[in-house]
Amino acid sequence: VASRAGIVVTGTEVLTGRVSDRNGPWLAEQLRVTGVDVAQVVVVGDRPADLQSALGFLAGSGVDLIVTSGGLGPTADDLTAEVVGAFQGRPSAVDPELERHITGIVDRLTAGRGWHLDPEATAAGTRKQALVPAGAHVLAPVGTAPGLIVPPAEGRSGPPVVVLPGPPRELQPMWPTALTDPLVQAALDGRAELRQETLRLWGTPESELAATLRRHEQALEGLEITTCLRDGELEIVTRFGAAAQPAYDRFAALIAASYPDTLFSPDGRTIDALVADELLAGKLTIATAESCTAGLLAGRLTDRPGSSAYVLGGLVVYSNEAKAELAGVPMALIERVGAVSAEVAEALARGAAARLGADIGVGITGIAGPDGGTPDKPVGLVHFCVSGLGRTLPRRVRLPGSRADVRKRAVVVALHLVRELLAGAPEG
Amino acid sequence: VASRAGIVVTGTEVLTGRVSDRNGPWLAEQLRVTGVDVAQVVVVGDRPADLQSALGFLAGSGVDLIVTSGGLGPTADDLTAEVVGAFQGRPSAVDPELERHITGIVDRLTAGRGWHLDPEATAAGTRKQALVPAGAHVLAPVGTAPGLIVPPAEGRSGPPVVVLPGPPRELQPMWPTALTDPLVQAALDGRAELRQETLRLWGTPESELAATLRRHEQALEGLEITTCLRDGELEIVTRFGAAAQPAYDRFAALIAASYPDTLFSPDGRTIDALVADELLAGKLTIATAESCTAGLLAGRLTDRPGSSAYVLGGLVVYSNEAKAELAGVPMALIERVGAVSAEVAEALARGAAARLGADIGVGITGIAGPDGGTPDKPVGLVHFCVSGLGRTLPRRVRLPGSRADVRKRAVVVALHLVRELLAGAPEG
Repeated sequence: VASRAGIVVTGTEVLTGRVSDRNGPWLAEQLRVTGVDVAQVVVVGDRPADLQSALGFLAGSGVDLIVTSGGLGPTADDLTAEVVGAFQGRPSAVDPELERHITGIVDRLTAGRGWHLDPEATAAGTRKQALVPAGAHVLAPVGTAPGLIVPPAEGRSGPPVVVLPGPPRELQPMWPTALTDPLVQAALDGRAELRQETLRLWGTPESELAATLRRHEQALEGLEITTCLRDGELEIVTRFGAAAQPAYDRFAALIAASYPDTLFSPDGRTIDALVADELLAGKLTIATAESCTAGLLAGRLTDRPGSSAYVLGGLVVYSNEAKAELAGVPMALIERVGAVSAEVAEALARGAAARLGADIGVGITGIAGPDGGTPDKPVGLVHFCVSGLGRTLPRRVRLPGSRADVRKRAVVVALHLVRELLAGAPEG
Repeated sequence: VASRAGIVVTGTEVLTGRVSDRNGPWLAEQLRVTGVDVAQVVVVGDRPADLQSALGFLAGSGVDLIVTSGGLGPTADDLTAEVVGAFQGRPSAVDPELERHITGIVDRLTAGRGWHLDPEATAAGTRKQALVPAGAHVLAPVGTAPGLIVPPAEGRSGPPVVVLPGPPRELQPMWPTALTDPLVQAALDGRAELRQETLRLWGTPESELAATLRRHEQALEGLEITTCLRDGELEIVTRFGAAAQPAYDRFAALIAASYPDTLFSPDGRTIDALVADELLAGKLTIATAESCTAGLLAGRLTDRPGSSAYVLGGLVVYSNEAKAELAGVPMALIERVGAVSAEVAEALARGAAARLGADIGVGITGIAGPDGGTPDKPVGLVHFCVSGLGRTLPRRVRLPGSRADVRKRAVVVALHLVRELLAGAPEG
């Protein structure tokens, strides 16, 4: 059986949603790869009592390891190190060597930025960041905050607590060191491998899949299957021990046989990766002309390193004048059929490809809302066209949800339409 | 003293980070506005034992109300209603009237999409969604899943549990009804008002602010102040009861006096809102030409409803050819000084404004990484230019972090530079 871990994410800014937590999910995935299952993620504000009760809850639920993120900064509301120390029965004190080390980092940092800081204030912040519970292992700072591994005081039982800083770019490089620490290795000793595989479908409703899963319930033993709909895609994630690999292989074959037209990713690759891989393999280039999504498709296509090999650029044509001037859509056409129409989507696709000299052009025009809808052209109506390789794929979709939902889902529809063109699938 | 609530977010897809949770933060903010403080958000996978232990933890920590999101779908891994029913000592049974109601919704939904579903599978899913713990109040479905308010069984103590569906566009419209339910009102009776105010600074390091806060510690009694850095902005959020309003007013005045040049938002408005408001007030239009951010600035400017009043459009100029062809940057200039240079940023800004006929043009060109850096032009180097209203504001910045970090922070730098131009601040 797999080891289990609990994660505590601290920070009132995370609890209240001003900042969305990236550490809980990242740590959960890192732990899974190591064969450790995450039982719970608890988000608490910057209040000592709440942090303490979260630690107590996780320790009490029998996890083998607790990982915390955040609360290691120089300000007074950052108090994780002390609370964890007290929880484990280990009082904190300033570590002079660590204090000197952090002072050096802060000096270089401020000099590099040309900042002039109040020396006394900086020293107080540094002293706070150099507080270490007695007997804890210190992880060298990536930014200015060190990490800590705090075992229970001698004579006490319970899991060790790995204390990591909140900024992902400090937390992530610190993780490999934390993981190889003897205290952590001892806590996770004897863990079994935990595998995870993903299938992605486009166009199958969740209730259909639920029916298939129910019909084959017996054959799925040993598999922990979860399904979720996101941005219109249906994602099936299965977690299982090594012994259940044959059961998983049968399950994956069953899904492939049941949904041959909608299973677009049998190996878990995202639509972004599939489109990128196919463009690269075909040495093809792409360009966009976006109205309602206004750059979000271009932005997403270029999320990937190396995307300059296939993304030439794009046109954000929010106004009708921009559609005419940049993408060459005839103003008379816009006046006749309206900016949100199959005809304008096609002219945008062709215009993007022509203006940027790309093999494939994508046109998107729609009504993201919340205003601007009419009975004929309601909020959420989006026309797409992908043009190139001698073909033209139009699509008309009515997307649900808020303005942000409509824009985000429109980007996903466009990516699937590009993939359809690249796959040479029949027009539809 | 304020009432306190706990939130349980269910879903292995959230726990493992494949989907980021939007409900915990949204609910926390809704509760705060109602005067209810959120103590903890617990994220659990789709496992009955983990959900049950999370409910036990929150109930045991003395909260007045528990709210859950997710786990109400038709698939077998959706089990919140039954687990909550069992936790409160109320066994679940199918509610025939609710079952008929959901059947009607599913029929209309599938007919509208032209889907043909297995009737038996659909009926099984509907039956599952119509399971109601004995004595629970039902909240009418927005999608197909009803919400529930489940009080402890008679003779038991503990907080009522509000059970809401996972999709934000189903959860959010259901919330006002849940809040006015007599069971919820009774649980939150006697709560005090909880105020929250936000200040935003641009260009002050967190350690400076920490020093100011430490110096004035005594004057800050009754204020719960948290600071966080995000995308380069320093955000100060203060929560307080009505009695501490004078203390807050003094604190806000102190920050305004200490950081007159960097406090850009004394009223909590975001940089996005400030730029939008100023463009609207001045009846000004804006256009973008983006290389490394490739549409993300245009996408962000158009996040806001009504942005077509001031965003005309933009150019995504990923390739050098696109910079020349779309934005009119002389190819000879690119060859002489390189695509990532102050000169090209300025040419992009002027080109965007000229091509789209906008009052203000924004040019962004940089090295987002992870590859493509050189000793002279390292990864993270970004040149900006905002041009218009007879002025030109250049800026050169080296941004830290991953490719995604660099792109996101570059958008924030650009927004601040636009605001600087609009405010008529001196060139810098």
